[in-house]
Amino acid sequence: MGTLGAMQDFPLRIMRLMDHAEREHGLREIVAARPDGTMVRTNWKQVAHDARRLAQALERLGLRPGDRIATLAMNHDRHLNAWFGVVGMGGVLHTLNPRLFDDQLTYIINHAEDRAILYDRAFAPLIERLKPNLTATRHFVCFDDEFDDALAVEDGDYRWHEGDERDPCGLCYTSGTTGNPKGVLYEHRSTVLHAMSIIVPDIFDLSARSVILPVVPMFHANSWCLPYAVAISGSKLVICGDNRPEHLCQLFNEEGVTHSAGVPTVWLGMIDHVERTGASLGKLRLVIIGGSSAPPATIRWFRERGVHVNHLWGMTEMSPVGTVGAPPSDWDEMSEDEQVDYMARPGRSMFGVELRTVDANGNVLPRDGVSSGKLQTRGPAVVRRYFRQDADACGEDQWFDTGDMATIHTDGTIQITDRAKDVIKSGGEWISSIEIENAAVGCPGVAEAAAIGVPHPKWDERPLLLIVRDPDSNVCEADVRSFLSGQMAKWWMPDAIEFVESLPHTATGKLSKKDLRDQYRDYRFANAEVMVGRD
Amino acid sequence: MGTLGAMQDFPLRIMRLMDHAEREHGLREIVAARPDGTMVRTNWKQVAHDARRLAQALERLGLRPGDRIATLAMNHDRHLNAWFGVVGMGGVLHTLNPRLFDDQLTYIINHAEDRAILYDRAFAPLIERLKPNLTATRHFVCFDDEFDDALAVEDGDYRWHEGDERDPCGLCYTSGTTGNPKGVLYEHRSTVLHAMSIIVPDIFDLSARSVILPVVPMFHANSWCLPYAVAISGSKLVICGDNRPEHLCQLFNEEGVTHSAGVPTVWLGMIDHVERTGASLGKLRLVIIGGSSAPPATIRWFRERGVHVNHLWGMTEMSPVGTVGAPPSDWDEMSEDEQVDYMARPGRSMFGVELRTVDANGNVLPRDGVSSGKLQTRGPAVVRRYFRQDADACGEDQWFDTGDMATIHTDGTIQITDRAKDVIKSGGEWISSIEIENAAVGCPGVAEAAAIGVPHPKWDERPLLLIVRDPDSNVCEADVRSFLSGQMAKWWMPDAIEFVESLPHTATGKLSKKDLRDQYRDYRFANAEVMVGRD
Repeated sequence: MGTLGAMQDFPLRIMRLMDHAEREHGLREIVAARPDGTMVRTNWKQVAHDARRLAQALERLGLRPGDRIATLAMNHDRHLNAWFGVVGMGGVLHTLNPRLFDDQLTYIINHAEDRAILYDRAFAPLIERLKPNLTATRHFVCFDDEFDDALAVEDGDYRWHEGDERDPCGLCYTSGTTGNPKGVLYEHRSTVLHAMSIIVPDIFDLSARSVILPVVPMFHANSWCLPYAVAISGSKLVICGDNRPEHLCQLFNEEGVTHSAGVPTVWLGMIDHVERTGASLGKLRLVIIGGSSAPPATIRWFRERGVHVNHLWGMTEMSPVGTVGAPPSDWDEMSEDEQVDYMARPGRSMFGVELRTVDANGNVLPRDGVSSGKLQTRGPAVVRRYFRQDADACGEDQWFDTGDMATIHTDGTIQITDRAKDVIKSGGEWISSIEIENAAVGCPGVAEAAAIGVPHPKWDERPLLLIVRDPDSNVCEADVRSFLSGQMAKWWMPDAIEFVESLPHTATGKLSKKDLRDQYRDYRFANAEVMVGRD
Repeated sequence: MGTLGAMQDFPLRIMRLMDHAEREHGLREIVAARPDGTMVRTNWKQVAHDARRLAQALERLGLRPGDRIATLAMNHDRHLNAWFGVVGMGGVLHTLNPRLFDDQLTYIINHAEDRAILYDRAFAPLIERLKPNLTATRHFVCFDDEFDDALAVEDGDYRWHEGDERDPCGLCYTSGTTGNPKGVLYEHRSTVLHAMSIIVPDIFDLSARSVILPVVPMFHANSWCLPYAVAISGSKLVICGDNRPEHLCQLFNEEGVTHSAGVPTVWLGMIDHVERTGASLGKLRLVIIGGSSAPPATIRWFRERGVHVNHLWGMTEMSPVGTVGAPPSDWDEMSEDEQVDYMARPGRSMFGVELRTVDANGNVLPRDGVSSGKLQTRGPAVVRRYFRQDADACGEDQWFDTGDMATIHTDGTIQITDRAKDVIKSGGEWISSIEIENAAVGCPGVAEAAAIGVPHPKWDERPLLLIVRDPDSNVCEADVRSFLSGQMAKWWMPDAIEFVESLPHTATGKLSKKDLRDQYRDYRFANAEVMVGRD
């Protein structure tokens, strides 16, 4: 009697996506609007050929499997070639975010020990500033000036580097607001599984007939894994280095874009553009919004134009997709208001993403739509250990703390209530800083608001609300208090409201509550000795 | 410096599908029309609970992880519970085909060393006949009489058996027409990857809002993996033990079925039913046809009713989906005739399925739409070694011979030209027996046709065409020859045509060419000495 029997070996390696794309839809078009305005039309056969030549060129430079090779670039065809070429020769593709501060980039590049950086000409001054401080980087290749030349001398007679499916393939640092940036080291297996998972109808719904323009930087969280996903689905890929609304809208129309994805500000800009110019959205039918949530008015605006909106929640540590708010089974029985409300939320987890919420003591909370706790996740595409860390990033049974506070509803849909580090801990209970801010910005005359927890002798922390007025406004504390009352539990009401000229932001445009907390660490509430009522 | 960093461990085990279904869409309905006519409504929470209790009951019987546990059953809720319960306790689910002959079943059960058989009451007489010859089977549980009782004493407090993702989870024997049946031993990993792959838009297009009724036996090739796939997608599953068209049509309407899948005869019966009764197809919008191809008239009939038809090609050894004829990128530019022609073909391979054709010497043929050769495949859900065989079933680089002859077009779509063992080898070239038969059945008065290769002194083999006349027909050889001429190359023209009363079929209803070849092994062509013209 022989062995029991077996199915075949097939390591889940990224280059299998490339092979599939080259073989099964090699002529499917890829359109790249380069940052300089040039339009380039390529396809999977050509990308595969270019990736092979890049792999040869990288080896000629002395680069070896396992080496980190960085890109500092916007979205364009050469960047796409680099994605596959670097991974094809066994390298680890490290996508750098050019919006970070110089010292952050220096730290990241040195920590990653990037051997080479491929960069856009626009970032040449940045590269020159960084160079003197880079300790491991030996090669700098400008996409605009040297990249094509480097490929031109290679013949493309190359076989992809093979190896274990758990080998690393990519590296992306999180733009954390505290401490040093941390690197998520993606593996071939995690990335292939993720790409397989996100083309399904309830995530990105990608078929051979789809045309997708991801308005998501290729340096940000694998560009939501979309360039890998379309290699499976054979959708037409449109990538674009200039995300002004008029430019995107033109591409929508000229290239027959059916799917797009991006953060809310992209869509606010698009709405403004369309309203001003009367432009058409062409064949657009699905917009995926991530990063933060778009207001119901945005969703309604797209609905009226035949475009469905799904929200997505995820993070770099999750490869990055966690949940998507695709229509649930009882969609057709919902009223329009119910549908819009559903579309404004980030939906349910996809297969391979497990979610739970826990309280301050680590007890698992029920999925009751009420209990709010720390949102934890685990799965094959979730980080276990950050790059070059001595300890795992996740706890017992691999549960990884997302840093978000959330409620999980009985139907499995989640609702993010706050960032865990921003939540205000008052008398053993949690107050959502985001909910206070969302309420405050609804008050006429309020331009921007930030709620932070400030140390309090009796309650541990109490909310301080900081407000930036509209330029022409004289809104005062009494106005804001009057507006907020009735919108939240009495014990959530800020103990103090201060008016400020501006609020600090991070390099990626987020409110920097860490800076605010540092700034107001010694703030004393006027009523600090007064009992705060609870109801 | 610590380890490099890592993503999480997450063995691709089938019970992760169950966990996902229970957690994310636990109340999504599963409707089972039992063979006895009873309608049962259950859901994923209930199936998970029942599966846990079955796992306990199986352990109570002394069954252990790795044991083969068989089902001999039609499609119903208890069978579904058994799928997950058997796998949940670490067993290998062996689905028996009740349509096989007794001696084949005996061989298969003994070869698999099935420890237990769960069976429908309708098959009790069959079980009684088999019992005396079964060497390894200790337990017989009737789904109708004993199954619920066995579960009733268990509390469901059970944790799924865990293990390696390459552990076996299922066993399915191929109903080969030559030699003993061979067992394909599915693994957890191969099955999970397959289930992930087939829910995408270009395969089964399954979302949370879909309602699918697979008219595919659960004993046949994992029921095309659909029960596992819907555990991911959260589609409503409707399973049915009685596939008469009036019954299926009623379920389509009452349950809001949007997707269905089955072999051509199911759909021919459905068309007849709808034409006779004027019944509606309800919300049906996608029909997947596999097994063999449906004629263009069938496709057009469904199109006119708003139902899209996709053909699927695969085999038990492929888990079983290989290709699906989903609309390609240039669909909207095709004429209606071109679309129908496309829909009649089995399409392109999905991700994870590699295909190639080779000639008689093993040389890889071009994808030119002309060259026909042996179709080979490889991938993570393709068999490497049959159960209890001493050698692998695939050749160098894992290429597995599908036993089909095919042409691959430049766009990657395949066209099956014949079964390799049925192909007629004439003068070093191949003649497709199927193409001769397809042409012959178009001749008025011909009810059924079979073309086989018969030994020939000069050409190795030459085609013999066997014809069953329509009951009231007097069609003669000259009529058939006249009809065929011009429809095929002259050297494909059968050397002889014989009229017979009937043709032999296998247990699963396929034409048994093996029997015909045995029967006509010594057939002598009248013109055996005559040169056959080639053009």
